[in-house]
Amino acid sequence: MIDLSNSFIFPKGDKVEGENFKGEAWQERLVPMQSEWNCPIGNVTFAPGARNSWHSHPGGQILLITAGRGWYQEEGKPAQELHAGDIVRIPANVKHWHGAAKDSWFVHIYIVTNPQNGPCRWMEPVSDEEYNSLL
Amino acid sequence: MIDLSNSFIFPKGDKVEGENFKGEAWQERLVPMQSEWNCPIGNVTFAPGARNSWHSHPGGQILLITAGRGWYQEEGKPAQELHAGDIVRIPANVKHWHGAAKDSWFVHIYIVTNPQNGPCRWMEPVSDEEYNSLL
Repeated sequence: MIDLSNSFIFPKGDKVEGENFKGEAWQERLVPMQSEWNCPIGNVTFAPGARNSWHSHPGGQILLITAGRGWYQEEGKPAQELHAGDIVRIPANVKHWHGAAKDSWFVHIYIVTNPQNGPCRWMEPVSDEEYNSLL
Repeated sequence: MIDLSNSFIFPKGDKVEGENFKGEAWQERLVPMQSEWNCPIGNVTFAPGARNSWHSHPGGQILLITAGRGWYQEEGKPAQELHAGDIVRIPANVKHWHGAAKDSWFVHIYIVTNPQNGPCRWMEPVSDEEYNSLL
């Protein structure tokens, strides 16, 4: 397994705490939530097996995958496998989750788009049954 | 010299043509200029010695440096040396340029912020005298 425990390129930041993540993840904010740029940006590092809960963004979000292997899934669709160099363009209000593969670290940049539309809406966790069915 | 001639992580894209760049550079658009995300994003790969002209963004811009060594300079200030993992937060209407070091490839992601404020304003080239004074 490639060791990305110190993240990749951008800083690892602080442990993500709370009920919206399962497993270990870290976040460094690269552009703050409130700034003249109106464009919150961060780097997220997921340990193997870590993922976030189902959620949606009222203004959409962009993911730029920089390292490792992981998953992105929209509700009602198959999960998409992600690798370095992949870009995910998440439309507004689409329910989805993202995270690492079971056997790989996973690192992505996120860019919150149209932040004036409001904050992320968090929902239920991805079940172990759903997650464990992924290779 | 580290060979980044095929870019790094994200696609290299097409040669940048026109008078606003000196030397060889390539751009891949990751999120288009016009989209529901209102957030144009691209990957730019500069060959050693390549740089853009002085310019400003009416809504600002963010640069995420992914590989190589280069420079960012705001008018009236010393040039800042850039490496992988550096982030440049360019305020609106600040005249600046960016590009590779003389002896290194340089790759960054750019994110256009507040694009509703209008397009980039291009100005004069960085003179050889100014550029060649940088190490």
